[in-house]
Parts: sequence; C-alpha cells; structure tokens
Amino acid sequence: MTDDKRIYLFDSTLRDGAQTNGVDFTVSDKTAIAQGLDRLGVDYVEGGWPGANPTDNAFFAEPPELKHARFVAFGMTRRSGRSPDNDPGLAALVNAKSDAACLVGKTWDFHVDLALGVSNEENLEMIRDSIAHLQANKSEAMFDAEHFFDGFKSNRDYAMACLRAAQEGGASWLVLCDTNGGTLPHEVEEIVGEVCRQLPDSRIAIHAHNDTENAVANSLAAVRSGARQIQGTLNGLGERCGNANLVSLIASLALKTDYVTGVSDEQLKQLKSVSRLLDERLNRMSQKSAAYVGDNAFAHKGGLHVSAVEKDPRSYEHVNPDLVGNVRRIVVSDQAGRANILSRLNEFGIEIDPKDEKVNRLVEEIKEREFYGYAYDTAEASFELLARRLLGDIPEYFTLQRFRVMDDRRWNARGELVTESEATVNLSINGEATMTVAEGNGPVDALDKALRKSLLPVYPVLETMRLMDYKVRILTPQDGTEAVTRVMIESGGRSGRWITVGVSANIIDASFNALSDAITWKLFRTSQTPPQ
Amino acid sequence: MTDDKRIYLFDSTLRDGAQTNGVDFTVSDKTAIAQGLDRLGVDYVEGGWPGANPTDNAFFAEPPELKHARFVAFGMTRRSGRSPDNDPGLAALVNAKSDAACLVGKTWDFHVDLALGVSNEENLEMIRDSIAHLQANKSEAMFDAEHFFDGFKSNRDYAMACLRAAQEGGASWLVLCDTNGGTLPHEVEEIVGEVCRQLPDSRIAIHAHNDTENAVANSLAAVRSGARQIQGTLNGLGERCGNANLVSLIASLALKTDYVTGVSDEQLKQLKSVSRLLDERLNRMSQKSAAYVGDNAFAHKGGLHVSAVEKDPRSYEHVNPDLVGNVRRIVVSDQAGRANILSRLNEFGIEIDPKDEKVNRLVEEIKEREFYGYAYDTAEASFELLARRLLGDIPEYFTLQRFRVMDDRRWNARGELVTESEATVNLSINGEATMTVAEGNGPVDALDKALRKSLLPVYPVLETMRLMDYKVRILTPQDGTEAVTRVMIESGGRSGRWITVGVSANIIDASFNALSDAITWKLFRTSQTPPQ
Repeated sequence: MTDDKRIYLFDSTLRDGAQTNGVDFTVSDKTAIAQGLDRLGVDYVEGGWPGANPTDNAFFAEPPELKHARFVAFGMTRRSGRSPDNDPGLAALVNAKSDAACLVGKTWDFHVDLALGVSNEENLEMIRDSIAHLQANKSEAMFDAEHFFDGFKSNRDYAMACLRAAQEGGASWLVLCDTNGGTLPHEVEEIVGEVCRQLPDSRIAIHAHNDTENAVANSLAAVRSGARQIQGTLNGLGERCGNANLVSLIASLALKTDYVTGVSDEQLKQLKSVSRLLDERLNRMSQKSAAYVGDNAFAHKGGLHVSAVEKDPRSYEHVNPDLVGNVRRIVVSDQAGRANILSRLNEFGIEIDPKDEKVNRLVEEIKEREFYGYAYDTAEASFELLARRLLGDIPEYFTLQRFRVMDDRRWNARGELVTESEATVNLSINGEATMTVAEGNGPVDALDKALRKSLLPVYPVLETMRLMDYKVRILTPQDGTEAVTRVMIESGGRSGRWITVGVSANIIDASFNALSDAITWKLFRTSQTPPQ
Repeated sequence: MTDDKRIYLFDSTLRDGAQTNGVDFTVSDKTAIAQGLDRLGVDYVEGGWPGANPTDNAFFAEPPELKHARFVAFGMTRRSGRSPDNDPGLAALVNAKSDAACLVGKTWDFHVDLALGVSNEENLEMIRDSIAHLQANKSEAMFDAEHFFDGFKSNRDYAMACLRAAQEGGASWLVLCDTNGGTLPHEVEEIVGEVCRQLPDSRIAIHAHNDTENAVANSLAAVRSGARQIQGTLNGLGERCGNANLVSLIASLALKTDYVTGVSDEQLKQLKSVSRLLDERLNRMSQKSAAYVGDNAFAHKGGLHVSAVEKDPRSYEHVNPDLVGNVRRIVVSDQAGRANILSRLNEFGIEIDPKDEKVNRLVEEIKEREFYGYAYDTAEASFELLARRLLGDIPEYFTLQRFRVMDDRRWNARGELVTESEATVNLSINGEATMTVAEGNGPVDALDKALRKSLLPVYPVLETMRLMDYKVRILTPQDGTEAVTRVMIESGGRSGRWITVGVSANIIDASFNALSDAITWKLFRTSQTPPQ
C-alpha cells in the first residue's frame, strides 16, 4: 500500500470550511465551488452535513454535477442506544444524494466519557455498526477518527481499537483527524507510521488543522509515513486557525515530490483561479502572500534580485509560476505589464496588432492610473471600458454636466438628530438635458438614485441592475481625511457580476466614477444604443 | 552542542520583513518594534542594513535602547577586488552602532557565477576575510549563507566550503538560509543534520521562507537536526510569501517541546500584544486565523463544541489561550464580555464596583453597539468616552446643532470638470452659538476643517492634533450603497495616538461621529474645561 505513490485529495471547504466564523455559503456558492474543485481534479468533494441545516439539505437534494470527483456527505456515528436503521442522523446520510459518506466518531477515551457519556465499549459498537450501515447503503463510507492524535497519546490501545472497529465495519478510509490542531510534524510522522504498521491493510488519511501553523507540514509528514489521502480546504479555510491548505499541498506534491495526485499538469494551471473562486464567493481579499497562488508569491522588488531573476528565474524562484497559473511580478519591468495587457485584451475578444500605437497608449494610461491608485486587476469592467474607449468602441450613452450632493444633519421637529442626503444630477443624453433629484441613505445612495432616475426612462435595461458591494479603501492613510480614496463597486444583474473602480481625493467623486463605469459597462454589454 | 536545549531567537522583521511590498517603516516604527521584541525576550533584533537607505542610516545612528536583545546590523560580504578595510559596505557596518553584524554571502555555485561573476575560490576569500574583518570590529559576526539548501543540492562540497570559510573567519553562527523558500521539511531535516555532523564545532542557525507554507515546520525540523538559532519575523512578515513566523515558533517551542528560549512564561503572555504592535505600525488588519494569537485561534461556535469546552477546555483547545496572552471566545457567552469590560475600565484607571448597576448598563450598551457595527476593541478612545460618559466624567465641550455638507461637481470656467466640497457647522459651546464654513478635499475634510474653525478659538490645544488615518469599512456589503458604514479615525498629537469610531448608514454621519469623539477625547485628556 505505502509503495503506491497515488495520493487522494479530499476537499472539505464546503463542510469543515463552512464552520468558519463569518462564512455563510449559499447553495449557489456551494455549487460553484464544488464544480471548481472538480475542474481542478480533486478526488472527493465533501458538500456538507445533510440534516444539519437547510442549506445543506437543499444542496444534497440537488447535488452539483461533477465529472470526476466523488461527492461526499458528512455525518456522525449513531446515537447511543439506537440501532443504525433507526438513527435519524444516519437516515439523513443514507437519503442524501451522495456517492460516499464520511462519518465522524470519537477515538479519545477522555472525549468518549466527557462528550458522549457512553462506555468505551459502546463507542466501539457505535463506530462499527454505523460504518457497516453506511457501507451497505453507499458505495463507500469512510471513518473520521476525531481527536485521533490526542487519543493515541492518551490511550494508544483504545484509539487503535476505534480504528479497528471502523475497519471491521468496512470503512474505505480511516481518517486520522488532528481535531484540535496541536500536534507537531514529528509526532504526526511517528504516530501515522505506527498506525500504518499496525493496520497494513487499511487505507489511511490525514486531516490536519493549522493551530500551530503546521497543517501543511503535518499532511506531508503523514504522507511520508504512509497516509494516502489528504483532507484539507481551499486557501486553508476553517474554524480557529483553519484546515490544511489543499492549494499549497497540491502544488508541492506535484512540483516537489514523486507522489501522484489526480490533478494533471493542465489542471494545476487552474490552481490560482480555483483559489480565487473561493475568495470571490466569500467576498474576501485574497491573501497576497499565499504560497504559490498569492499576488506576491512571485513578486520581485527592483535591484539585484530583479537583474538576477531576469538572467535566470531559478536564481530567486523555487518553481515556475506558470505551472500553478500565477505570474511573475517584477515591479520595474514594463514588458510584463504590456504582455499582460495584451493577453487581457485577448480575453475580452479584442483583436489588436501588438505593434499598434494604441497599445502603447493604453499601457501608459494604465501605468499612470495604477500609480494613482486604480486597481484594474480586480475592476475588470473598468479595464475593459478603458481599453474599448481608447479603441472607440464605447458610445456616449450619457454625459455628466453637474452633480450636487447635500448632507444635512439637524434636529427634526420631533427633537431627533437626523441626517438627510440629497443628490441632484444634470446629464446630457444625446444632446438632451435632464435634471433629477433623489434622497438616499447617505450621499452615494442618493447619487445612485438620482442617476437612475435620469437614465431608466431611456435605458430600461438598467432596471435589473443592482449594486452588490461597495468598498472603500484609503490609499494614502498618512494624509488623514485628505487622503486619496479608491471606491470599488460590484454590480449584478442578468449579465452576471462586474466590478468597477473610481479614484479621487474626494470620496463622492470616486464613487460617482465607479457608478458611472458600472452603468456604462451594463449598457455596452447589452448592446444598447443612445437615443437618436 | 546539539544536546544543549537552548534555542536563540533572531528577529528580522526590521530587515527582511522591511523588504515586503508595501511595507515602509519609519524610524519611530522601527524603534517601537525593536523595543517590543526586546520586551518579548528575543535574543537578537536585526535592525536593517546600514548604508542601504536613509531610514536605516538614521536608525543605526541612534539605535533603540534594548535591555536584553543584541542589536544586529545586516550587510553583505565585500566586493570582489577590494580589501575588507577598503570596502564601503563593510565600513558602514563597522560604523553602525550595533552589537553584532550578520553578513550575507553566496553559497550556491550557480549564483556565484550568475550574480557575482567571480570564481568560486574568490567567493570563499570574500566570505572568509569579510567575516574576519567584522569579527575584529564587532563583538560578533554571523554568516548568512544565501541559497544554502539549493547550493547544497547542486554542489554539496562547495556549499560546505563556504560554511568552512565563514567558520575560519570566526563567524559566531552559520545561518543556513532557504532564500527561495522552496525546500520541504524532510529535506531541511536531512541537510541540517548533515551540516551539523560535518561541522560539530559550529553553531548552526536556520532562516526559512514560507513559499511552500512550511517555514515554521522547516525551522522546527532544523532545530530537531541540531540548529540552535531560528531567524524569523513577527507574523511571518516578509517578501513574497513571508519569512518563518517567530510568533508561532515561540509559542510552540515553549508549550510543546523541551527546548528553551529566552522568552519567560511571563513574557510569553505578551506574545499577542507584540504581534499586534506590528500590525498597528503597518496599519493592517490582524489575521484572525493566526496560530496562537489570532482573534479566532480560540474561538468556539455555539453547540456541542462549546458545551464540551465549558466542561473541559482541553476537549477542543490544544493549549490554554492565557499562556500566549490570548482569550477564549465563546460566541454565546455574555460572561466573557462583562469580565473583559471590567478589566478594561481598570486599565483606564476607572474604579467601579463590579456590582454597580452602571456596569450592566455599559455592558448592554456595548453589546448593542457592537451588534450594530461599532468596534470597541480597536477604538479604545471611543470606548473610554462611552464608559466615562455613562459615569458622568465628560463635560459638554460642544454640542452639534446642525451640519451641512455640499459636494458639487461641475465644469469650471476653464472647461475642467472639478469637484468642490464645502461644509457648514453650527455648534453650541456652553450656550454660545457658532457657525463656521470651510472647503475641503472631499466632504469629511471639509467637515473637519469647519469643526476646527469653530473650536480652535475656544480650545487652542486642538492646534497640535492631527488626523493620522481614516478607514472606512462597509459592514453589510450585500446592501450596496445603502450599507451600514463604519469609520475609524486615528488621531495623533502630544497625547500620543488614539482611535475613535463612528457607525451609520450615512458615511458622512459616521465620519462626523468619529471626528467628534476624537476631539472630545483630546479635550478630556488635556483636562480642558468648557468656557464659563
């Protein structure tokens, strides 16, 4: 078994990752992430805990279509005093539309007593017959040995007896879980080695947490000792300090070891994009310093490093960033920017001769704007508009003549201190002047409402457009309230979601610019024409 | 040597960490961080690279007072063709006011050729005589073996010859640097073990980077193989994916191994606060999922986990959070909040009977406000004002009657689209009405200026107060421009720095509240009294 170099990848982003404080996946988030993991080539996608909450019930009622990965439902061993046939938790698992089940059970005697309050012997029976019941009703059932490492240290014989009970029940995998995340790599290596020696016919998996910042190393140590399945999450998402980061593990296994996973070289190039998919669904900033996939993972500052990297990238790069879908960033180089911009124009279906003078102008314009604070990496819709405006593709849908926004905080007639915001917008739409006014829940909301009031009669397609997110970042915090402000707006509607950016020393100005780009992009994408 | 259990801690936050994209320490940042590291009990504080930039020159001209830690200057081996006496880089190191020097040199033959363009033999001489020169002029000089692991894999004999050259020069430590960060833990363990066997009389250090998310594990693996110094940074700050995180390493060494560092149990309790000090200086969000010190590191969600944790914390906690200055967070418990608030009142020197009804009111008020979006953990000045207002300590310095802010974007006489912001503020100061107006670089700046115009004649102490930072966070992003907004303002002046918070659906309102608190706190702290 341990001579076999195939390592199975088990993703728990949608189950253990979903336990994280502040994470609240919708069914559509779960579907998109499961499909991203499948595209990447992960072997198992654990979707959640059917029976535990309405989202997971809905997700398992209509599971995502996966081409390669097996879809797994999580649950726990039956309750004390019930038969497996008669246990509502196991019934929910049997009825869930999944290929496999993963059942958690206790293996630490201290916990059997403290949390379950049953005898050690009864816990063994609960493990054995619950696994057997699932195994009879699913094509596979694995056993998640909760607190295995603490249990092994406290009462080695009992922890091993729990694994044997699961093995007798027919478990396809015995998952050694470091539930509290406190085990160090050398301990994992020793204990997994011992388990593999004692149970040579079982397939062993590792499930590590990052409480000592060693979850990745613990997973690698387990593999070196004979484990052949790794459980983890995208970007290390998870409770407390997170789970083992599958993204880093996939890359290291593929690029630095002779182990083999189900992720092909082509799929590995999607690593960064699948990592980003999770951040986008969570509406989080991506971690720039993330191993392999972070924006800074292959960033080189000017000076000696850069000249050595340009002579030979091996000099300051441990792997080629292309292999994981990332890019080298050299701050002083213009060439990288130019190639990047051309490849992005291509993505938008814009055909242009790389030698066209307009490309140079676009590169210059973007460099200048990014220096000023625009972030075109994220604000793809604003980037596309900038490029298309330069190429003359964007009609003049509307022109701002003037706006005024007034915020008034005062005592109202009932003796309450209230704040009211009101915006007036003057536009010209194909030569015709409009003037509208609206109140809002703050200055930007008022501006948005006044703008729509002018535009909706002319462009009814804007009816379906919604603002999904509004982000403000201060770019030069040392300047206090005089700082330059960047506003990013995410809009949604029938054309999906799109992000636009505005930058100004004045937050209202920056907001207006981002709003205006968001509306213009929607009008362009739906092939509107200005009124004649 | 390797039987000795003492592990020396070498912090490079101010040198290698300072290389990070977007990090730009001032001298006062460096001083504060160096003193925090010293308080924590780190053995070596590397302050920077004298001669490389004006900040480091200024920092080494007036080094911070450290009680325990040795202060280290970083530099590189002499240039080819120069004598050590005649090398400007080494001269800057000799002249720097530091206890020790750390000199980087090449040990990978590929790099000696590619980056230096000198012969392998000449590089050995450069290492040997540069170290000897520093050793003669400082109380200690260590050798930082750049790319040692890549060098060892490529040409083991040459990499070892470089270490021997440094040893011959009298290096106090040989620092094995995994410069590109690509080495996996089992390789580090093997290679460090081999070095220790070949050089039994040298003291070996490890300097790991996090490019495979294994920097902490690599450091631990090196220690197990005989390394006795660990180089790293606070919170893993550093280029690309960062350096080894000393915070996690200090905690794991102290709580999970029989190695001994210079950090006492008492100092270990400052781990979280020193970690936070860096984030504050960098004006960054602290990573909630950070091992040991993150806000979520000991957070337990409701349900089964919590009841088990309440029965016995060991059930779901790998270490006691108190030991590293962190706290358990149990979302459902109110008790934690109350104890926390009482201990904070104590810190401000507010004496109150814990059974006083006012404490209950304060706890309720804070819970309600935190639910709404206030963040009193960070905004300590707003917290103090809230508590002191409830206790009747804060005089009525001024009362807002009304403000109006107008933002106007229009075409000016020169045909440019300009935006102007103007604010009018009506205050009542001890019954006397004032009305002032000011223009600003955006609505909040205008408001700030108008407010000061009214207050300065009455409270001249405000002259020295400056806005240092202005942060906006949208708390309910799904609500688009109607979202609830939180504004945090950091102010500075002769009373140090203080942070205040304002929350409102209206960003202008939220900003005014934070500004108003900032001014009130300053007036209270400088013992102003309202005019009679």
